[in-house]
Amino acid sequence: MKQTTTLSQYLLDRLHQLGVNKLFGVPGDFTLSLNDVIEADPRIDWVGCCNELNASYAADGYARVKQAQLNRTPDATGKITGGVRGLGAIVTTFGPGELSSVNGIAGAYAERVPIISIVGAPSTKLQKGHVLIHHSLGDVGGRFDIFKTAMEGMTCAQAYLMSADNAAEEIDRILVAALKTARPAYLTVPTDLVYAEIDASRLQTPLFPLPGPLDERLPNGKMLKHETQERLDFVVSEIERLWDVAEDPILIIDACAIRFGAGHLVEELVKATGVRWYTSPMGRTVMDEDPSTGFGGVYIAQLSDEGIRDAVEKTDLAIMIGAIRSDLNTGLWSSKIKTKNIVELHSTCTQVQYANYDNISFQLLLPVLARVLKRKASLPVERPLVPARLPTPTGDKSEAITNDIIWPLVSDFLRKDDVVVAEIGCSSFGILTTPMPKGATLLSGMLWSSIGWSVGATLGALLAAQETSVPRRVLLFVGDGSLQLSVQEISTMVRNGLKPTIVLLNNEGYTIERHINGPTAKYNDISLWNWAHVLPLFTPPAGSSSSPVKPGRYVSATTRGELEAILTDDEFAAADRVQLLEVKLGRLDAPKALRRLGEVTRQVNSA
Amino acid sequence: MKQTTTLSQYLLDRLHQLGVNKLFGVPGDFTLSLNDVIEADPRIDWVGCCNELNASYAADGYARVKQAQLNRTPDATGKITGGVRGLGAIVTTFGPGELSSVNGIAGAYAERVPIISIVGAPSTKLQKGHVLIHHSLGDVGGRFDIFKTAMEGMTCAQAYLMSADNAAEEIDRILVAALKTARPAYLTVPTDLVYAEIDASRLQTPLFPLPGPLDERLPNGKMLKHETQERLDFVVSEIERLWDVAEDPILIIDACAIRFGAGHLVEELVKATGVRWYTSPMGRTVMDEDPSTGFGGVYIAQLSDEGIRDAVEKTDLAIMIGAIRSDLNTGLWSSKIKTKNIVELHSTCTQVQYANYDNISFQLLLPVLARVLKRKASLPVERPLVPARLPTPTGDKSEAITNDIIWPLVSDFLRKDDVVVAEIGCSSFGILTTPMPKGATLLSGMLWSSIGWSVGATLGALLAAQETSVPRRVLLFVGDGSLQLSVQEISTMVRNGLKPTIVLLNNEGYTIERHINGPTAKYNDISLWNWAHVLPLFTPPAGSSSSPVKPGRYVSATTRGELEAILTDDEFAAADRVQLLEVKLGRLDAPKALRRLGEVTRQVNSA
Repeated sequence: MKQTTTLSQYLLDRLHQLGVNKLFGVPGDFTLSLNDVIEADPRIDWVGCCNELNASYAADGYARVKQAQLNRTPDATGKITGGVRGLGAIVTTFGPGELSSVNGIAGAYAERVPIISIVGAPSTKLQKGHVLIHHSLGDVGGRFDIFKTAMEGMTCAQAYLMSADNAAEEIDRILVAALKTARPAYLTVPTDLVYAEIDASRLQTPLFPLPGPLDERLPNGKMLKHETQERLDFVVSEIERLWDVAEDPILIIDACAIRFGAGHLVEELVKATGVRWYTSPMGRTVMDEDPSTGFGGVYIAQLSDEGIRDAVEKTDLAIMIGAIRSDLNTGLWSSKIKTKNIVELHSTCTQVQYANYDNISFQLLLPVLARVLKRKASLPVERPLVPARLPTPTGDKSEAITNDIIWPLVSDFLRKDDVVVAEIGCSSFGILTTPMPKGATLLSGMLWSSIGWSVGATLGALLAAQETSVPRRVLLFVGDGSLQLSVQEISTMVRNGLKPTIVLLNNEGYTIERHINGPTAKYNDISLWNWAHVLPLFTPPAGSSSSPVKPGRYVSATTRGELEAILTDDEFAAADRVQLLEVKLGRLDAPKALRRLGEVTRQVNSA
Repeated sequence: MKQTTTLSQYLLDRLHQLGVNKLFGVPGDFTLSLNDVIEADPRIDWVGCCNELNASYAADGYARVKQAQLNRTPDATGKITGGVRGLGAIVTTFGPGELSSVNGIAGAYAERVPIISIVGAPSTKLQKGHVLIHHSLGDVGGRFDIFKTAMEGMTCAQAYLMSADNAAEEIDRILVAALKTARPAYLTVPTDLVYAEIDASRLQTPLFPLPGPLDERLPNGKMLKHETQERLDFVVSEIERLWDVAEDPILIIDACAIRFGAGHLVEELVKATGVRWYTSPMGRTVMDEDPSTGFGGVYIAQLSDEGIRDAVEKTDLAIMIGAIRSDLNTGLWSSKIKTKNIVELHSTCTQVQYANYDNISFQLLLPVLARVLKRKASLPVERPLVPARLPTPTGDKSEAITNDIIWPLVSDFLRKDDVVVAEIGCSSFGILTTPMPKGATLLSGMLWSSIGWSVGATLGALLAAQETSVPRRVLLFVGDGSLQLSVQEISTMVRNGLKPTIVLLNNEGYTIERHINGPTAKYNDISLWNWAHVLPLFTPPAGSSSSPVKPGRYVSATTRGELEAILTDDEFAAADRVQLLEVKLGRLDAPKALRRLGEVTRQVNSA
């Protein structure tokens, strides 16, 4: 290995080591040298996006799908490791560029997706001179660190490089922080440091598996300090004590288990204990949704299917792994399970009934619990374990399409290894009643709930899906209101030869909001578009050197018969080109769970 | 007047008093009650945008055109007032919504455009309970003020309402701050305070003209404190001393003169002194660009036309009014005028040669100077006063279009009272050689330089232009790379029956960047779109109740002859519907000033 390298190459080497093979972004004059280095690096592809917000969404989708893929396989070293596996990164320019991405970065913070936000900044000379340049706030005295300051609350770590001297340490510091916390980190690279020469020796020590405390707490116990081992033993015995007397214990898996790469650990626990297990909406596809493993469905308290709700809430011990107890993920905190019947395993702490134990993480606990907890079956439940799927509609094929019709048909349309991206709204609630097939990955932004996210995320998901040997279809379910925010990124999919199937639920507005407030209000209406022109717009004109081999396919459905015909068509199912299926719906038609959510939200907002 | 009102109605009344007749935004569940109130208010129209960034751009364009319109007329009261006249406002939802608009708000901060960013926030109960809700960062302990904190560096004032008790004072405080500083301000309205009853009595005292110090400094002197009058007299005498001995004094007008509503004061000074006057790129259309008033052209130092540069830099006294000395606005700080020959009048201070005087603003000084400075002609200049316009191309009409061909033809196409929006890049540099006709308003975002801004700004400009009695065409000049960032907002123009003429300079990528770095780099290329489908996509399908009376017009030009034919066509000039003119250009073709900028910027970035 070389003794020295350039600062920018050091960064790319580290990103490559961590599995970042795509960099999303929009070039700007302060990123251009960095873009030269990226373009010259054969290991990392530059994915130029239409705008920076979409780029951050794409990095988010990329990281989530990589996480999901890595979750299914134990770490190659066989060690139990902390930290995430599945990182995304964006490159934007100082000021307008980076600020356009803030919403995406903040969303990644909320939903625990590690994204490195790399900002091409003005040269250190310009910054030290406090000169008044474009892309700055224009105040005399040039506050060049103001955007970094703004990001402090929305990223886990920031490195504001002003010298090459400490650059390697600084880059490593923020990368490790992102990996440890599953949150975005922020880095500036001034134009004059791009080619600065730095010591390359740190590159010989990979950042992952993570060094430090998490490794010291390996379940063999030997590497743990005595005190910690004693605490760990105590917590394990507390959980065992509850487990032994429980008559109907269950497991509830949530998003942080996925984010911290603990999917395989969860799977071991499920297999070892033999009890029923559920997921939250955000925890779905941590494992295959396979009833033969005890999968009982998606639990979302008062918004759940009643059969699932009853089956969950009769438990006398719920072990919750990686819970994110946000409103939409918990049916507005309506779970009836009592705290004395709950054990919560988190990435940073463990809660047993009312007692909290810091620094005991699920990465540490899960392997121990899989070994010590007695195998016991949960009690049988009265209703079918997975009643999620709605009945397939029958009768008059000329009837108008409703959500009750869409989702059973989609359930049949889905197949092994699909990646499904569901926009917040009718899509994320409709997908609750749509079982995920084996190997499938579901992405949904329930906590941050930023409409438009799914479109950029689909771009990232498509590119991450290409990085496995298994062919994976990527399906986007999105409403017309949401698609309007970020529609241009479909062109980046076309440009990169990607083949999403986009199912557009056209209800002429913001139907989720209509159910919360203003069912007929004008502000919930949107511009009406002629969606047949989307793919033609985003496809290079005929004869262009970059024209796709197969032009995109647009189809639309107004009746159940039309929708059935499309979703059972082999050519459509093959998804061999970019496809847009426009489904025309009534303005107020929505999945049952969304309608119920609307009622409850209205009450909460006015309280 | 009623004794009490609701908090939201108080806010709308204040905005209406300040001339805000449009509110731009995207509804979200925390804004819906506020949206109800807006929809019910006949004085203020809700303009639903496709996304929040575009909404902030629209508010920016709206405020700028209102500023420009009000600049031409003295204040109705006849008093010299501080503060701006021309305000914009957006309404977005907490978290994802507001963060999506940050770039637009920060740009307004840089370019001195007052925008009130109104954020619909979770109820005070939810906030005080620190509950984990969607649209939050999801951390335990719920940091609901984190987005406000992030905005502190990018807004002049913030009001984070948590009670109705002080709401009226808080709203007034941030509005006055925005008016005084010509910068954006930030306000949260929690859902449960929308209908809270508050005292209405403050509404009887208008916020504008501004109360306080600025009014006390009226040029009649009586309201000024003795010390201040003495200082003012001293500064005036210092300027007079330089003026009296100057052989070739000139005036250079810049953006802050427009932003602070001082256009009519500048005009008085120009008329009173009789000397040559120039503008910076950002100061254009503060007054009519009329050579008979002494207008000498656009001064941008080394990027200027040489004739203008020579004529300006031979001055022995330049009075600069409202200067923004940023790189792009000053030809990268390359002016050769010596500081000892400069008087700078700002909104907050005055600089005479090397001496700085705080709190002496141009609002205060300009009327005095117009009265006391001796009338004197500048020296004649060797070259024509306004050589800006490039020669009209002649010869082979089948030749490919270049920027040297476009801008002279555009010069002839422009007409009285046009509003011209020029995107950063070829458009903003090409427009430098395009004289603005009488009554025209030019918008350009030279300092912040956020590509995509012009599209949203055009929406706002169109709506502001409707608020005058004069019919005004609104023309957008934008490159294909920039248009891709914010293209969807064209649909909002269509929806609102607006009729922009969009001139799309299609050079298949980021040509401004190609001139800085990477002329053939892939990262400067973009997805190629088939632009003929833009207007069809953004127009409701035939038969829809909201179909426009006249469908949009798309035309394209590849040769000079084609472009001439379009730009001299009466029907096209009538601009009676939304129009898109696609002009096909070579990938590296650019206006001369931009090519020179590229060379210099490359040196600065690597220094």
